[in-house]
Amino acid sequence: MDRPPIIISHANIGGRQEGKGPLAHTFDELSADSFFGEKTWEKAESTMQKRVLRRCLERAGMGPEDLDYILAGDLLNQCIGSAFSLRDFPVPFYGLYGACSTMGESLSLGAMLIDGGFASVVAAMTSSHFCTAERQYRMPVPYGSQRPPTAQWTATASGCSILSVQGEGPRITHVTCGKVVDLGIRDVNNMGAAMAPAAADTLSAFFRDTGASPSDFDLIATGDLGKLGSQLLRDLMAKEGVPLGENYTDCGLLLFDLDGQDMHCGASGCGCSAAVFNGYLLGEMAAGRLKRLLFAPTGALLSPTSSFQGESIPGICHAVCVEA
Amino acid sequence: MDRPPIIISHANIGGRQEGKGPLAHTFDELSADSFFGEKTWEKAESTMQKRVLRRCLERAGMGPEDLDYILAGDLLNQCIGSAFSLRDFPVPFYGLYGACSTMGESLSLGAMLIDGGFASVVAAMTSSHFCTAERQYRMPVPYGSQRPPTAQWTATASGCSILSVQGEGPRITHVTCGKVVDLGIRDVNNMGAAMAPAAADTLSAFFRDTGASPSDFDLIATGDLGKLGSQLLRDLMAKEGVPLGENYTDCGLLLFDLDGQDMHCGASGCGCSAAVFNGYLLGEMAAGRLKRLLFAPTGALLSPTSSFQGESIPGICHAVCVEA
Repeated sequence: MDRPPIIISHANIGGRQEGKGPLAHTFDELSADSFFGEKTWEKAESTMQKRVLRRCLERAGMGPEDLDYILAGDLLNQCIGSAFSLRDFPVPFYGLYGACSTMGESLSLGAMLIDGGFASVVAAMTSSHFCTAERQYRMPVPYGSQRPPTAQWTATASGCSILSVQGEGPRITHVTCGKVVDLGIRDVNNMGAAMAPAAADTLSAFFRDTGASPSDFDLIATGDLGKLGSQLLRDLMAKEGVPLGENYTDCGLLLFDLDGQDMHCGASGCGCSAAVFNGYLLGEMAAGRLKRLLFAPTGALLSPTSSFQGESIPGICHAVCVEA
Repeated sequence: MDRPPIIISHANIGGRQEGKGPLAHTFDELSADSFFGEKTWEKAESTMQKRVLRRCLERAGMGPEDLDYILAGDLLNQCIGSAFSLRDFPVPFYGLYGACSTMGESLSLGAMLIDGGFASVVAAMTSSHFCTAERQYRMPVPYGSQRPPTAQWTATASGCSILSVQGEGPRITHVTCGKVVDLGIRDVNNMGAAMAPAAADTLSAFFRDTGASPSDFDLIATGDLGKLGSQLLRDLMAKEGVPLGENYTDCGLLLFDLDGQDMHCGASGCGCSAAVFNGYLLGEMAAGRLKRLLFAPTGALLSPTSSFQGESIPGICHAVCVEA
């Protein structure tokens, strides 16, 4: 970015499991009610987005009329989490679909709209909900299906950032848009393995393009590769000659207590990286404990239909460099 | 746009019904096989995107490596039409979801990425397929469900534009991003009525912001409001004091022969406006018969789940002004 946009406000919201995890203290709001006061889980997901956007605007001392654009998307079929939440916000809206990479995609496009001179203030937002995702991708939760060890747990969470051409906060200095990468993984219960090659591709491109190396960052945080996927990413990056060190982690490893919460390989879902970024990570930057962050959420671009038709799982990863 | 991006290449593809319609001669490729040589309709939809993108690149004398970004999306759950087509194109990809407004959304964001200095060449693309849409939104085609008179027919089609910072072709001079507008229409067989208020909102904003009036355009073409929706838009715009004249039409009215093809209220689907824009409309511009075009595709942001839960249908419309 020539004039790096500033993240002037951020907010997140989570559900019951997020409230039991190690990052509970970094949430602005936690709800033990998975319906968030609504009658269906899908409406609950929209309600999470509405609450997190309102809180984010309040913190910025703004109203919806101050936003030039909202960039948002989610995992639900036809992205209804975002469309229905934004009925209450009369703001120009570009809908995105990047699966669990959506927080990175919305931050990237938002930053470019501002730096390109097309907007002064933009909101970037996404969400996921464990129960809507299970019903849509696997089985309705009340069926009590068993989960294999490689499975991850979709976060019930939402996160929102407000980017501005002026104000106080960390800046988005670089973005790298990912490519669709598919190395043939077919196991829908092993998203980490499916997405790791896309993360390696985007991180390699980022380091090649910027001339930076992993050690230039206080923290590199991928989206939700989880325990297995993040180890695969380490292996792939080492093979590429750009090994990731102690300063590498994954949002899917941070959100839950992997030993105590029975979450198998960790957290996933658009809301995972969105809530970790807009809570823990930006909180650490505000506290001065992080100065240079590379945030790289990953998405698995499959659908139940594509899997039923025998397709493998394409992945994508969008990287965003944030500096204090 | 300060330096209006140029549409240097465009291509479209259609299916059997599109080949029987009045715009058949404006298609680059028509397939009587609804599977486009694939085993499933979903794979057929991806194949349409692949073919149209390849043709568009060939016409521009380019390869995938010349593209800085691809902006694409479709109607399928998790936008698998785009994700799976782009596995074959190693190009940075931002996935979009704007329902049938996607061609407008991809052109808008593409134009801003170029004018903002973030890209030299961008592809904007979308698709829809009658059989994938029926199966997903209504009933599988072999069930032979009846269709009410207000229903529209999802186009089996795809369209692609390549935008560039330099070259020959018409230019994108203005874009207006739409808001989510929902006036409470609940009839999923009457999308035109659900989307017309969004189209009115965006067109009003466009004319207000630019100071232009409808008569300044050779043609104003909304996306796929169809027969009923386009009449509703006329009524709404007249009430707003910005009546649309003879130079207004709708892509949903153009694609099929409404009397001879039993298409009820007309065509719909992302592929409708994409194929009409990237065939007939840009063809008319190339032939010098259109100099100033306002292209405003509309989208209905519902899902079957939202309708089952009693929700109304939010609409959106993105406007793009193209000048020869």
